[in-house]
Amino acid sequence: MDKVVYLDNNATTKVDPRVVEVMSPYFSEFYGNPSSMHDFGGKVGQKIKEAREQVKNFMGAALASEIVFTASGSESANMAIRGVLEVSKKLKHIVTTKIEHPCVLNLYKSLEKEGYKVDYLSVDNEGNIDPQELEDAVNEETVLVSIMYANNETGIIFPVEKFAEIVKKKNPKTKFFVDAVQAAGKIKLDVKNTQIDLMGISGHKIHAPKGIGALYIRKGTIVMPLIVGGHQERGKRAGTENVPYIIGLGKACELAQAYLEDEVNRVKCLRDKLEQGIISLIPNARLNAAVENRVPNTSNIGFQYIEGELILLHMSDAGICASSGSACTSGSLEPSHVLRAMGIPFTALHGSIRFSLSRFTTEAEIDYVLEKLPGIIAKLNALSPFQKELKAINAL
Amino acid sequence: MDKVVYLDNNATTKVDPRVVEVMSPYFSEFYGNPSSMHDFGGKVGQKIKEAREQVKNFMGAALASEIVFTASGSESANMAIRGVLEVSKKLKHIVTTKIEHPCVLNLYKSLEKEGYKVDYLSVDNEGNIDPQELEDAVNEETVLVSIMYANNETGIIFPVEKFAEIVKKKNPKTKFFVDAVQAAGKIKLDVKNTQIDLMGISGHKIHAPKGIGALYIRKGTIVMPLIVGGHQERGKRAGTENVPYIIGLGKACELAQAYLEDEVNRVKCLRDKLEQGIISLIPNARLNAAVENRVPNTSNIGFQYIEGELILLHMSDAGICASSGSACTSGSLEPSHVLRAMGIPFTALHGSIRFSLSRFTTEAEIDYVLEKLPGIIAKLNALSPFQKELKAINAL
Repeated sequence: MDKVVYLDNNATTKVDPRVVEVMSPYFSEFYGNPSSMHDFGGKVGQKIKEAREQVKNFMGAALASEIVFTASGSESANMAIRGVLEVSKKLKHIVTTKIEHPCVLNLYKSLEKEGYKVDYLSVDNEGNIDPQELEDAVNEETVLVSIMYANNETGIIFPVEKFAEIVKKKNPKTKFFVDAVQAAGKIKLDVKNTQIDLMGISGHKIHAPKGIGALYIRKGTIVMPLIVGGHQERGKRAGTENVPYIIGLGKACELAQAYLEDEVNRVKCLRDKLEQGIISLIPNARLNAAVENRVPNTSNIGFQYIEGELILLHMSDAGICASSGSACTSGSLEPSHVLRAMGIPFTALHGSIRFSLSRFTTEAEIDYVLEKLPGIIAKLNALSPFQKELKAINAL
Repeated sequence: MDKVVYLDNNATTKVDPRVVEVMSPYFSEFYGNPSSMHDFGGKVGQKIKEAREQVKNFMGAALASEIVFTASGSESANMAIRGVLEVSKKLKHIVTTKIEHPCVLNLYKSLEKEGYKVDYLSVDNEGNIDPQELEDAVNEETVLVSIMYANNETGIIFPVEKFAEIVKKKNPKTKFFVDAVQAAGKIKLDVKNTQIDLMGISGHKIHAPKGIGALYIRKGTIVMPLIVGGHQERGKRAGTENVPYIIGLGKACELAQAYLEDEVNRVKCLRDKLEQGIISLIPNARLNAAVENRVPNTSNIGFQYIEGELILLHMSDAGICASSGSACTSGSLEPSHVLRAMGIPFTALHGSIRFSLSRFTTEAEIDYVLEKLPGIIAKLNALSPFQKELKAINAL
């Protein structure tokens, strides 16, 4: 493979070589089962304990016992949501948002078929949720509210700690789940100082491998396990522990904490340079979420009157990786449910591209994109059936 | 850590260095998301396809699309069992055995609380299941039968292909799930030529890492997903694919197939040498499952009148790893449910040890165990409160 400029870090990230390094000995050298009676396995158990402590610190939990290791952000969400619903089977009302990750939305769609009533909160043109709408939605029957911490497509950050207060004030028994997959590593998590009951993260969005995640379950919150069997994870999730990845997630969390400052300074500067560069160089480009409360690495830009898939394919040919929405829905030709919920104009909807940076992104890579992208867009503009509209934009 | 003679391969195995080698590039080099639109991700998708083919061949499935990747044998079992039950919610009768893996048994215990009626088939003194008892148990209401392929503690192999015929003849609608975690890599799997509907395997028992498994779902068998969300695994299991481990499992399956002959020849010889050596050198040792239909790597030996946990600790001090049952139940002082179901005499029950070998076991290691173990047992015999009984055995 030739040159790769990877600006698709909200889809997945490069595993940090320091994460690979700490995992390596646990494949073929210290491969014991942490549940075994012998020292060879027992010593591995100690490393899992350390990793749980690292994840606890990263999420700002009060206790390491509040952290459960899972195999993905999706599993964390399924475990949290199903786990809460199973405990209070008579309550059938759920509140979530229109702009949750497709993984979470699909689960709610399937719960509706099972008889749950799900209210989907809307967002305004800037992508924000109205706290009053949330307050009005929660009632006596509400078993669960689930709102993401930061949106994967726009990067918009929601004030989930305030939302938790609103939910708990209205119905103290309602459980509040926060999907923090896209916030983790980009803004500081401090779950203990909130009223959030459950919070999920995914390893592969913070430079740990694909196939590991964690779920924070506040002490006292009862959650039925999704995978029943052995006593692992204090009976909350059966299956022999994924020792290398757990150790890797611990390290990734430690690194993500250390890199938070880099993220809000250096990465944000590069993102802003990319964003401003594109807007100034390409007349039919418009910023889809021009708000301050965004994670520092994400930019969502609509190229009016052209097709996003075509842009992606031409960028891919030039070695530039980005995306038109969640990787989990790619292949579908539907425009983004998030941008539609925000009322992004039809003219920009189909040509919207998400650029997401990471600690490994360099200024030279941003310069390369700013060098290549205007030519790609110009070529696609020439093919667009909307020549009159494009000329009008160019004349501005 | 000093010398380690690892004879606990039914608990977990060393990841084969050739598996580590194929996984390595997929952490920090080819880290794209297989669902992404760009080539960088797409090329990874191709590797998953190859791995699925390898697993298909290993399990003897007809189609690669019948293979779903999971994160563990436990998840495979939960997905199969819950997934079948969710499809036919009105049917509440399940048939399984008393000697299933604790992971599976615990799930059935929890299903009983949800209103399912579960019949547990017994085993005779040699650990075998009576086919007539199975036939009698299945009725019009039976939604699922689940029987393991080989027992993790004794290694006894069950004729699951015949059991499948019995089940289907009695009730063609009943689904048959086979937990093949302990059979995989030890005997040839050939699921397409059976009437088995679902079969689960675990990577870390066949020299792939902990944290990966697979579930065979026969074409046409409907299973509700356990983890709902993205479109991965054809909508059967959401979550970004664990690319390195999937590639690793593919390689591990290919290797396990190639090593089957080594398993039934070299490994079996070593196992027999260990077994016969212990029985001849240690008067109070008795073989717990002295049958031919056993996997080649497993031996379960009862040391009468002494405690298994003490034996394990002393062996651990000498660098020898073995176990007293499933690692998933270790820490509990209950004697093995499998050996109890077989009616193993009380005198041997508490002092029963499972030795499980692998492709990495050497003759020198077996010799080392045969050199060390008699001294350990003699020391523990001297501490036993059953001196009269031990003297009687020694006098035989």
